Amino acid sequence: MAPCPNGGRTSERKQGERVRVGVIGGGQLARMMIPAAIELGVDLRVLAETDGMSAAIAAERVGDYTDAATVLDFARGVDVVTFDHEHVPQDVLAALVDAGVPVRPGPHALAVAQDKLVMRERLSELGLPVPDWARVEDADGLDAFIAEHGGAAVVKTPRGGYDGKGVRVVRSAAEVAEWFATIAEDGRPGALLVEELVDFRRELAQLVARRPSGEIAAWPLVETLQVGGVCSEVIAPAPHSAGRVADVACDIAMAVAEGLDVTGVLAVELFETSDDRVLVNELAMRPHNSGHWSMDGATTGQFEQHLRAVLDLPLGGTGTHAEWSVMVNILGGPEVGTLAERYPAALEGHPTVKLHNYGKAPRPGRKVGHVTAVGDDLDEVVYEARAAAAVFQD
Amino acid sequence: MAPCPNGGRTSERKQGERVRVGVIGGGQLARMMIPAAIELGVDLRVLAETDGMSAAIAAERVGDYTDAATVLDFARGVDVVTFDHEHVPQDVLAALVDAGVPVRPGPHALAVAQDKLVMRERLSELGLPVPDWARVEDADGLDAFIAEHGGAAVVKTPRGGYDGKGVRVVRSAAEVAEWFATIAEDGRPGALLVEELVDFRRELAQLVARRPSGEIAAWPLVETLQVGGVCSEVIAPAPHSAGRVADVACDIAMAVAEGLDVTGVLAVELFETSDDRVLVNELAMRPHNSGHWSMDGATTGQFEQHLRAVLDLPLGGTGTHAEWSVMVNILGGPEVGTLAERYPAALEGHPTVKLHNYGKAPRPGRKVGHVTAVGDDLDEVVYEARAAAAVFQD
Repeated sequence: MAPCPNGGRTSERKQGERVRVGVIGGGQLARMMIPAAIELGVDLRVLAETDGMSAAIAAERVGDYTDAATVLDFARGVDVVTFDHEHVPQDVLAALVDAGVPVRPGPHALAVAQDKLVMRERLSELGLPVPDWARVEDADGLDAFIAEHGGAAVVKTPRGGYDGKGVRVVRSAAEVAEWFATIAEDGRPGALLVEELVDFRRELAQLVARRPSGEIAAWPLVETLQVGGVCSEVIAPAPHSAGRVADVACDIAMAVAEGLDVTGVLAVELFETSDDRVLVNELAMRPHNSGHWSMDGATTGQFEQHLRAVLDLPLGGTGTHAEWSVMVNILGGPEVGTLAERYPAALEGHPTVKLHNYGKAPRPGRKVGHVTAVGDDLDEVVYEARAAAAVFQD
Repeated sequence: MAPCPNGGRTSERKQGERVRVGVIGGGQLARMMIPAAIELGVDLRVLAETDGMSAAIAAERVGDYTDAATVLDFARGVDVVTFDHEHVPQDVLAALVDAGVPVRPGPHALAVAQDKLVMRERLSELGLPVPDWARVEDADGLDAFIAEHGGAAVVKTPRGGYDGKGVRVVRSAAEVAEWFATIAEDGRPGALLVEELVDFRRELAQLVARRPSGEIAAWPLVETLQVGGVCSEVIAPAPHSAGRVADVACDIAMAVAEGLDVTGVLAVELFETSDDRVLVNELAMRPHNSGHWSMDGATTGQFEQHLRAVLDLPLGGTGTHAEWSVMVNILGGPEVGTLAERYPAALEGHPTVKLHNYGKAPRPGRKVGHVTAVGDDLDEVVYEARAAAAVFQD
């Protein structure tokens, strides 16, 4: 862990009160904060988008997170506000800050996670390694970039993309004509992000947590496997990553956390290129799928660490319980029935696998849960996690 | 884990429904079931004794667990009923069984945990090693037992004792005269339990979990330290216990679980005597203070295992994350202020310690939380856990 360069800013919590954390968004990330909150004696309150969401057990209320009055009213009952996602509009965040509510991560950090063009600009300013990129406002600009980069490129909508949505590999601007059209319809100057098609060997993710006083804790670098743009599997630590790659990844993530003043958990998704470079792909300023393994495989899981970080408490150790942890997402779930009906079959032969059910209705491609296996033999750990997860998928 | 001698009785849960577990009692044991329930996607509902108890976040309602109508009404919404304590009266348990509600552990097992005389009788019938004991109905009987056992003995009220209450070491029946008086006032044939004063080297506890289909899983034998009759510290595994002692303890606990048809977690508190015998002291048929370490130190914590067991799901692995786990109770808490105010001091120097806050107001002697440290160097692990816990106590 790094020293605390920014001094001793302390939590705003008042003497004698219970610690109350407000989470905007009621998805599985908010849900998985609840067990950590219970153990820490933190009163977690969730502003959920709709009834019956993943985090319903702690949902104090249901409301629209894009409405400043709703969010301000919710925030009145808590000591600090944090997030299940990065989609709260900047005007709502500004209203919270104006009202004196601690918002972690803060609006300036979130602005970078909310817009991929802003992210590329800020990372480039910080001197961090990113793929070649450009802001393109029309088909000509995009075709020019494609021509300069071997005839193919990745186009991304700056906002609203997730899990592979809003990302397209193209060989011609015509393939994203409707995206340009959408931008034009917004009636404001719009642009798309275009990036070189990175020739990568694999994808990695480096998670760190940072508290307002500056302390940073890093988990081991992990390897992530994507299927159709959606994370399907995470191996911690990333195999064959001891040494330079791990050091570079950790340095990058710490530089991002400090450079953007991120508080809470920060996930830096990385490419390891075929020519041995490490480039930043995406950022997430919240607990992240690539860190779920830490709940079962590390001394401090990412949800506990996120709460400690946003409360400006000393961060927990990030050592691991065993040499390897492997997390496999349950994507979609069974075509008929519930996850719970598969428990006997999934658990019978896999007593060391840890199961996490997000309480969501199965739907094709939806992340409805995950399993984690931990142990010292990578082949065995991978097998256990995959086999248990497979029971839940038709 | 033992094979499944009793065949394949399956859960009563209906196809397609969410799994709902009702917990009678809203203390810290119910509270610590909640995180496990959230991860397993179990809908945990608590019948709490009063408002604002430890398990309030999952308290569906507040009501009197000695009132059959209240408990029956509560049970209507769940698939299985289990417990935070063993004090639900037998007539209430019978009403649940009559109504077709799965009750785990069942009334016959709980009857043994509810009455220390019944417990001694049943354990003796099972041929398990217990201290010399007798049922005494008057002072003469008690004085005779004392005279036959070296001039001192332990007297226990059969019901209502916990954490050292209702237990007294005496040299004369006169020292418990008021207990005989209380029994007489009940207007029914009453008796006290008297036991030899065991010359023990240390106290141990063996936890197992058993599901209705018969599968049993055992955690490592642990050593427990008591202060004033209250558990203060647990070391897992019990030092110097590999081999015979561990085998004997495990055999005893499995025999108790099977002999009494216990379902869920069973804690068997044991004496290791100065002449190397292992004797059963007490039984608890629920998660137990001596198993808290497993939440942080074992693949499957006792609260998750209890839920799996009462739902008749395959049990989880009981392997440990490291060589040693040490749990230290936070007894009483700070004289002024809240536990949370001590977090910065407690967590700053102890990043590997796991903290559990029961959300209870500090009060002298009260169990308000615990900390666990896990690692491979016992001295260091003991130091970390004690040092972190000490920050919370004036």
